[in-house]
Amino acid sequence: MYDFEFHNPTRIIFGRNQEESIGAVLKVAGIAKVLLVYGSQSVQKSGLLDRVKANLGLSAVSFVEFGGVVSNPVLSHARKGVALAKAEKVDAILAVGGGSVLDEGKAIAVGALAAGDVWQFFIGTAVTAALPIYTILTLAATGSEMNGNSVVTNEETKQKYNISSPFTYPRVSILNPELTCSVPPDYSSYGAVDAIAHVIEAYFTKKPGSRLQDRLVESIIKTVIASHNVIHKDPDNYEARAEFMWAATLALNGLTPTGVGDYAFPNHMIEHSLSALYNIAHGAGLAIVMPAWMRWYSRQHPAQFERFADKIFGVQGAEAGINALEKWFQEIGVPVRLQDAGIAGGDIALIAANAADLATLWGIGAVYTKGVIAEILALAVE
Amino acid sequence: MYDFEFHNPTRIIFGRNQEESIGAVLKVAGIAKVLLVYGSQSVQKSGLLDRVKANLGLSAVSFVEFGGVVSNPVLSHARKGVALAKAEKVDAILAVGGGSVLDEGKAIAVGALAAGDVWQFFIGTAVTAALPIYTILTLAATGSEMNGNSVVTNEETKQKYNISSPFTYPRVSILNPELTCSVPPDYSSYGAVDAIAHVIEAYFTKKPGSRLQDRLVESIIKTVIASHNVIHKDPDNYEARAEFMWAATLALNGLTPTGVGDYAFPNHMIEHSLSALYNIAHGAGLAIVMPAWMRWYSRQHPAQFERFADKIFGVQGAEAGINALEKWFQEIGVPVRLQDAGIAGGDIALIAANAADLATLWGIGAVYTKGVIAEILALAVE
Repeated sequence: MYDFEFHNPTRIIFGRNQEESIGAVLKVAGIAKVLLVYGSQSVQKSGLLDRVKANLGLSAVSFVEFGGVVSNPVLSHARKGVALAKAEKVDAILAVGGGSVLDEGKAIAVGALAAGDVWQFFIGTAVTAALPIYTILTLAATGSEMNGNSVVTNEETKQKYNISSPFTYPRVSILNPELTCSVPPDYSSYGAVDAIAHVIEAYFTKKPGSRLQDRLVESIIKTVIASHNVIHKDPDNYEARAEFMWAATLALNGLTPTGVGDYAFPNHMIEHSLSALYNIAHGAGLAIVMPAWMRWYSRQHPAQFERFADKIFGVQGAEAGINALEKWFQEIGVPVRLQDAGIAGGDIALIAANAADLATLWGIGAVYTKGVIAEILALAVE
Repeated sequence: MYDFEFHNPTRIIFGRNQEESIGAVLKVAGIAKVLLVYGSQSVQKSGLLDRVKANLGLSAVSFVEFGGVVSNPVLSHARKGVALAKAEKVDAILAVGGGSVLDEGKAIAVGALAAGDVWQFFIGTAVTAALPIYTILTLAATGSEMNGNSVVTNEETKQKYNISSPFTYPRVSILNPELTCSVPPDYSSYGAVDAIAHVIEAYFTKKPGSRLQDRLVESIIKTVIASHNVIHKDPDNYEARAEFMWAATLALNGLTPTGVGDYAFPNHMIEHSLSALYNIAHGAGLAIVMPAWMRWYSRQHPAQFERFADKIFGVQGAEAGINALEKWFQEIGVPVRLQDAGIAGGDIALIAANAADLATLWGIGAVYTKGVIAEILALAVE
């Protein structure tokens, strides 16, 4: 094991109707006014937004509404949120929605306390302060509810970049699995792919050893697959929604890579270009990238893929494990080739050029050159 | 899954030489003076205490020494620590040692801010404040480095009772696996038993379901067994010491019982009486109690024991799994019967009477009557 620091101060409140505690949570923390960040129709249609507003009223917490966050949240909208948060002098951000809403909420929390443009923090400036962040999660996938990550797309430059800071861990995240029962089947599946993608990056790219972390990752993947198989047939199954939700949170809360040393996020790096260029769902992009990257990477590093095949699917050999994962992706209805998502195979050079810029920013540009990324993407063509 | 809250704010700094960061950590936190709590010879002989003191000096953090904490820490000594902490007006507690030192350090942290006697908090009064607690761990076992638990024995009343509070989570715990390489073989083995005992209580006594938590528990147990087998033959193996240390921390940091609903600590309950009455090592007592309790409990609830047998030891049937665990305990040299620890079988009634009082305090007295505890202990007689 390598040296590490682990510190995750987010308080999780998990279970049925727990969103009813938000007013009390904010009041105890001394928060008098929040920017209420959300997406669009679903939280309004479901009645969740009205219930949250009523609950804030009960605790005399005032709020300013800021809706309209889109999937793959965009910088232009986040900038409007920052301006509103500053103008209204809110004490905190309350993000109600899925990972996109939480991520944009975090960006606003950072921008609200900064003098310059918030994008600077996505391209290198260190975050040194943020408004307190509170969240009510409606979609299990990104893990944003228990980490300091925020991913936002700059539409002008076509860059999907991220903040990762100790200042942007939510103070409290409320996770009610019932709220995820209305997530459409395709987005449930994307969430499953996303959670798996979060744990496999370190699992496959770290150095050998750290068996405890391997076992924790395998526990999460097995739970995601088993619970999602139930959800796929029975979307209202509370137990499965709950196990899936908590597994997705643990998949990116900093636990699984503790002590594994250096590792990379190549699948996320390439996928960010897919969703930045084509605005496809993050989970859909990952389902396309992962089997291709795995086939490419396992040629050089087969051992961990052999373990993955055995522990997760009970099959022998690296290729058999990758095939089993790809088959499962197909069973749950996610795309596994570029063409499945309407992306032309001829676009590979364009995608690779975009991804190579991010590879450089993430410090893996020496390995993931345009040529290598194109080679990987060629394995994602029908 | 059942509703839960999870909040573990302890920052872990893990790895070689990390104790060298303690002065800087305290300085950044604004701590000017600490009560330096430790045990006896080992931290002095090893030179660790001198290195810590020198490091505090480098950051101009002053300290008052309070040594002499014993294994199974006692109330009379903790009271002296409380008096010293009050008299010296320290800002924080720095505990350097194993779980006993950390536990007594927490008791002092609570007592130092209380008007009355510290024992009140062990017998029912809620903790509402504590001095900040910092730790440097030298023995992997109790998990005290990342939880709010403190166990202290009142020698007068022969009660081994505990505090469990959000106020007594360490702010920062420093875990350097190298410091554990000098732990004697028997205490390394006790630590392994203790870590396993921490995760099996909820695993076996919770209601069915929560497969994610089952998998996390199995990951920890498998890691403890595998890493301890290496340590048993090669005490200086850093990788094994590191995996073992982190597994022992995760075994009692609140993660594994998230969402499992109500569960009990019957093994710890009975063991507390063994170490309170006979002052045997906690891990030794647990190794005696566990196989007996498992045999008794599995008669009524075989399913999870069958899973345990399969997942941990690859054997079939509840009894085979318990036998395998007991055999492993014998291999690593810990006692598995009362007589192995020099306790007469005739003492069962005495032990059961002591344990039944704690069962009542812990709310499981209806099930764990004197008669039932005696029945369990009868299975721990040669």
